[in-house]
Amino acid sequence: MKVMIAGLGLIGGSFALALRDHALAEEILGVERSPEHAAEALRLGLADRMVTFEEGMDEADLVVLAVPVDVLPLMAVKALNRAGKEQVVMDMGSTKGELCEAVSMHARRGRFVAVHPMWGTEYSGPKAACHGAFRGCNVVLCDTERSNADALACVEGIFRNLECRLLRMNSEEHDLHAAYVSHISHVTSFALALTVLEKEREERHIFDLAGGGFESTVRLAKSAASTWVPILLGNKYNVLDVLREHIHQLEIMRRMIERDDAEGLTSAMERANSIERILR
Amino acid sequence: MKVMIAGLGLIGGSFALALRDHALAEEILGVERSPEHAAEALRLGLADRMVTFEEGMDEADLVVLAVPVDVLPLMAVKALNRAGKEQVVMDMGSTKGELCEAVSMHARRGRFVAVHPMWGTEYSGPKAACHGAFRGCNVVLCDTERSNADALACVEGIFRNLECRLLRMNSEEHDLHAAYVSHISHVTSFALALTVLEKEREERHIFDLAGGGFESTVRLAKSAASTWVPILLGNKYNVLDVLREHIHQLEIMRRMIERDDAEGLTSAMERANSIERILR
Repeated sequence: MKVMIAGLGLIGGSFALALRDHALAEEILGVERSPEHAAEALRLGLADRMVTFEEGMDEADLVVLAVPVDVLPLMAVKALNRAGKEQVVMDMGSTKGELCEAVSMHARRGRFVAVHPMWGTEYSGPKAACHGAFRGCNVVLCDTERSNADALACVEGIFRNLECRLLRMNSEEHDLHAAYVSHISHVTSFALALTVLEKEREERHIFDLAGGGFESTVRLAKSAASTWVPILLGNKYNVLDVLREHIHQLEIMRRMIERDDAEGLTSAMERANSIERILR
Repeated sequence: MKVMIAGLGLIGGSFALALRDHALAEEILGVERSPEHAAEALRLGLADRMVTFEEGMDEADLVVLAVPVDVLPLMAVKALNRAGKEQVVMDMGSTKGELCEAVSMHARRGRFVAVHPMWGTEYSGPKAACHGAFRGCNVVLCDTERSNADALACVEGIFRNLECRLLRMNSEEHDLHAAYVSHISHVTSFALALTVLEKEREERHIFDLAGGGFESTVRLAKSAASTWVPILLGNKYNVLDVLREHIHQLEIMRRMIERDDAEGLTSAMERANSIERILR
């Protein structure tokens, strides 16, 4: 199978490595807008050669779109415009509503598979690509009834090889749950980093006192704006909804601390503890 | 050296293991209010035998107070009341203001060393104790000018053996910086868990979609209320100050998302990214 990957950053690059490590691609064609990233991707072996979008579309059996979610919808339409009857086009984006709507009436809609592997790190660019990235993670496939059976089987086969757990969800459900469980974590992490940078003028003390707890809660604040601004704006209404609830929960805790309400705080924390039951 | 440890939970228990692993204690005497924890601590080898507070004070060279911060000040006073001229009393608490004030006028103040090792996990109780816990972490010593030189040298010697980096700070500075860098992370993590539990009625979806990012931001929400309620209330004014700033930062991000302000979000995230420079 010849695979074209548009966007060889953290996600696209790691997917390239996974395809290679599992011998799932005979050749990987890379598409990159940035000349520096293109050179780096070649150097890191993320692609066998770099091609233009059009060249890649002419050759590839599988077309993987791993670009920021704001450029994804139009790129998906353009890919389908050029897609042959046996080519498969998939994305790897974190929001699905606008994307799935953009391709919904396309004559070749069946060749498209909407994919969101629940994996990522706070790093970005070709250098962030890593081996073993998707192994064992949950992969959400959206609106699968709109994909042709062979296209779906092609994509599912790859992720089964990576030992992923496959889930199906419609694109609206996906965006709602992704806001609750993934996008909000990034918002709070960015805001927490800004809070500490704002209040703690003496940087030395952040460094001196930051224990493992702080590091794990602000880890996501290292994430790239070019990835996350489009995700937050692309999933605006769900993100705002959960963000309002989060601010509300913080206000409740603030009032309990102000009133020395140990009982209320204890009960809130014990409810929060139940997240453990769900996570493991 | 004979060491008494009052409180053989996560911190006291891990300290016991560290003392054993580095052959720093000939005998460890445990003090535990809970009979279940006492039995568990013995079974796990966290203490050689369990004693009462008074028995331990009669025998130990070093007295370690590893109890929740709300019971710490009075326990420190009682320990100093019984301390001989060569005994050393140290605590391991996360807030220092009230504690250091409580002992400030004590006739034996010099025998006390206020210690905060910047280490912890989200687990609690004797079972949470682990080997290698404090290795390489930052350890804050507070109001060291009030401790006798030999008492300070005893405590510093232990943490140097554990390859810790020793820092000195007065207790007020400590509480201020700890609020910014450690306590706020716990508040946001608890609130984030509550937000998701509140909004996401279908628990299955939390489980299905929670990627690594979510898990690391809510990890601290598994922490024990019995540890954290006293810390947040004991450091109330600093915690409220930083919490107000955090809510303010979230409100700013919320308004930017509402207004589709991609430029503002990008600039905020890029500022937040600079936390990386400080953390590593």
